[in-house]
Amino acid sequence: MRLDHAQLRALCAVVREGSFERAAAVLHVTPSAISQRIKALEDRVGRLLVQRTSPARATSEGQILVRLAEQTALLEHDALSRIGIDAEHLPRSSIPVAVNHDSLETWFPEATVLFARSATASLDLHVEDQDHTAELLRRGEVLGAVTTLAEPVQGCQIHALGSIRYVATCTPEFHARYFSKGVNAGSLANAPVLVFNRKDDLQARHARRLAGNDTPLQPPVWWIPSTRAFVHANLAGLGWTMNPLPLVRRHLEAGRLVYLRQRVYEDVPLYWQHWKGDVQGMEILTRAVTSASVALVRKRR
Amino acid sequence: MRLDHAQLRALCAVVREGSFERAAAVLHVTPSAISQRIKALEDRVGRLLVQRTSPARATSEGQILVRLAEQTALLEHDALSRIGIDAEHLPRSSIPVAVNHDSLETWFPEATVLFARSATASLDLHVEDQDHTAELLRRGEVLGAVTTLAEPVQGCQIHALGSIRYVATCTPEFHARYFSKGVNAGSLANAPVLVFNRKDDLQARHARRLAGNDTPLQPPVWWIPSTRAFVHANLAGLGWTMNPLPLVRRHLEAGRLVYLRQRVYEDVPLYWQHWKGDVQGMEILTRAVTSASVALVRKRR
Repeated sequence: MRLDHAQLRALCAVVREGSFERAAAVLHVTPSAISQRIKALEDRVGRLLVQRTSPARATSEGQILVRLAEQTALLEHDALSRIGIDAEHLPRSSIPVAVNHDSLETWFPEATVLFARSATASLDLHVEDQDHTAELLRRGEVLGAVTTLAEPVQGCQIHALGSIRYVATCTPEFHARYFSKGVNAGSLANAPVLVFNRKDDLQARHARRLAGNDTPLQPPVWWIPSTRAFVHANLAGLGWTMNPLPLVRRHLEAGRLVYLRQRVYEDVPLYWQHWKGDVQGMEILTRAVTSASVALVRKRR
Repeated sequence: MRLDHAQLRALCAVVREGSFERAAAVLHVTPSAISQRIKALEDRVGRLLVQRTSPARATSEGQILVRLAEQTALLEHDALSRIGIDAEHLPRSSIPVAVNHDSLETWFPEATVLFARSATASLDLHVEDQDHTAELLRRGEVLGAVTTLAEPVQGCQIHALGSIRYVATCTPEFHARYFSKGVNAGSLANAPVLVFNRKDDLQARHARRLAGNDTPLQPPVWWIPSTRAFVHANLAGLGWTMNPLPLVRRHLEAGRLVYLRQRVYEDVPLYWQHWKGDVQGMEILTRAVTSASVALVRKRR
């Protein structure tokens, strides 16, 4: 069985744009042409490939073909570029990559800039919780991921990057009010805490460590799913929380924030995993990611 | 029919924490007690209330009861606080609120801080695209929302807040490279553009306006779903994009960024919608939201 590449491109466009109409606009054809191509591809492979929801989504079989199409597009882009076709005449291409939130807010933007300096493709970044980016890689929705998963995903190469260092901080006034008698189970159960979202268990883990036991505490919680709003609320004294050290270092130095307990850290190790295929863009990206990740904490061997 | 409030609290905890285990930890009971309460509640109302997925989700019937439970908790919290019970003896309570991404990155953190000054409850913020926050309100997952929807959601009060002002910016070098012969359909089709995510159509809309026609352009796209990484990439010259004016004003003043075309804006009007119930916390929150929103652009009448 051979696949029709116009049909594959239509599938890719629908899944990435989320609708038949937008896919049509991007590919400069009518929505009905898109619909016919998807239908023809589904008939050919005998599988439902797209859920006609809003936004449209690939089925698990569809995702496998999307991944194939993206890998093919990258290889094609790569080949044309290697035989000297000018960047502006190359087909538009972007590498889908999953990045955890705190990386995207700290060291990863520099990787994007380093990548842009030598690559002709662009990046299609997806933000996810650090324990969930590997899932996007496994499902074929992305070709590379910054992840906490130390085991290589099938078909992927893995590079250890170092760790994001988290520190528990609050304002000096907050510390005086809640922790003047010590940071323990009693005070931690009363002190309000800022938590990013339901997937964020850093604070709860750290509190158990500070309390020295495994009883879950139930402090008042502020749920604030934005890094900027998070630091703002921390500085305004709404609660204590875990922040990536690079984001709060200058506040600690200026005394606007203090450590809950002096220099206690949680280091979260990160890995770069990417599809093994021979794509020039991926090599450039891997170099950019490992270069930019020098901002992370490296363990001594 | 009367409902058992311990069962309602169990339902609420499961939906908010996403699992029976975490709900159990929060309510200091065993997972099996949680499971029994949910089952009993489902038997009582004769409806499936929780999808046993990971994370666990409320069915649409379940969401109606979750909303009831949250409203009840707020009213109870309110009553106890009004009869003079000390803050630290009040039941933990937080108001679920949906906020669009750019508000959370600009003016909304100040609303959080203003709210914290007078309220005894905390906030449970959910971040969503500005065109989708109203949906969370409609589904009863939140009791208040910052939204672009000008029509009140059923049972809700609406307040016009003003508009977020967006400007199209790039570096002076980028402007010289791509737009030296003018900002038009031809140059806009070639100049790389930064887009937040699939729901973000601001750039495409603005490009059509600048090009003066409705043909969809197909420029190279960098997808960057983080405000900080977005501004970083804009400053590094990876592409042009639409930014909230408050985020880039100082870069424009310092000449690190320039307007694509002098002082052309897109104003996106925002509304605060909240449940009408008589809850003190909600009044405080509405005051905080309207005060903090002075940072938005107000139309002259």
